[in-house]
Amino acid sequence: MRKNFGAKTWAYPMPVFIVGSYDENGTPNAMNAAWAGMYDTGLIMVCLADEHKTTENIRKTGAFTVSFATAESVVSCDYVGIVSANDVPDKFSRAGFTATKSELVNAPIIDQLPMTMECRLHKFTEDGICIGEIVNISAEESVLDESGKVDAKKLNPIIYDSVSHAYWNFGEKVGKAFSDGKKLI
Amino acid sequence: MRKNFGAKTWAYPMPVFIVGSYDENGTPNAMNAAWAGMYDTGLIMVCLADEHKTTENIRKTGAFTVSFATAESVVSCDYVGIVSANDVPDKFSRAGFTATKSELVNAPIIDQLPMTMECRLHKFTEDGICIGEIVNISAEESVLDESGKVDAKKLNPIIYDSVSHAYWNFGEKVGKAFSDGKKLI
Repeated sequence: MRKNFGAKTWAYPMPVFIVGSYDENGTPNAMNAAWAGMYDTGLIMVCLADEHKTTENIRKTGAFTVSFATAESVVSCDYVGIVSANDVPDKFSRAGFTATKSELVNAPIIDQLPMTMECRLHKFTEDGICIGEIVNISAEESVLDESGKVDAKKLNPIIYDSVSHAYWNFGEKVGKAFSDGKKLI
Repeated sequence: MRKNFGAKTWAYPMPVFIVGSYDENGTPNAMNAAWAGMYDTGLIMVCLADEHKTTENIRKTGAFTVSFATAESVVSCDYVGIVSANDVPDKFSRAGFTATKSELVNAPIIDQLPMTMECRLHKFTEDGICIGEIVNISAEESVLDESGKVDAKKLNPIIYDSVSHAYWNFGEKVGKAFSDGKKLI
């Protein structure tokens, strides 16, 4: 038996993407976005309401970063989803974040979040959704495995649970993509 | 020190959404989509290449479902991402799936996946990206907690790791959304 819940905006998993941007004075900002995902080859989509400081910043600078929230930074990452830079201009530093400017785009890399996409604004869609071209991904050496690849367990990214409003970390590897399914071929 | 990886299509987490659709004869199909996420209020986005049978189906029926892949169904869910219904017409049943038609839209609910969005095609964007209006979400009673809410641990959804091509399940709750960040206010 299935229970119907109606038209809810629930999905498993949902991301916790931290969107970094600069205003016209170079003041960094960060916000928390769960309505987001890959849009197409090399492109990432983030749903940003027009009233966000982040949206205004991206329209002006044509750039942003997306970092993946981690268990270690959960308080900071949740905070930037609660408070607006329109009300708290020093939100970014209050979150405990410091920024290093990307060498590729006019957007801040958040030093406390170890893996980051640097994006050039591709466009806002006809629906006002922000699409970024991924120019580079960087990761701290501390989250790499011995072969130099990103190690999900070391990165310790979090997942947003939109039903219970909880953040989860990753558990165990339960399968190999493009591999396990071959058993049925 | 950060290591630069270039323009990779990596994000943590990425979803494992199983898109269900019917062809014009009512034959169900399923495919695995990781380039997807919430697009806007009540809307879900899925990047579907034109050549997929699923894309053709959705254009004809104006409907689809999105179910969340689970650890228990990882072989089936990976399989439907490897094989095309254009080559294997009975792909859906070979995956071990059976379908119950949604009462709300012309699309199959996959009986083996316990939580499902039923969607009406909203549109394909100017870029050909599929946007669905979420009409209903249903979940099997077996994945609900005692208060009738979806329990992520019972559902046991999986995450796609695009760096190592692995599937992960959820680990532990590591925070409360819209709550933990209040410590910094």
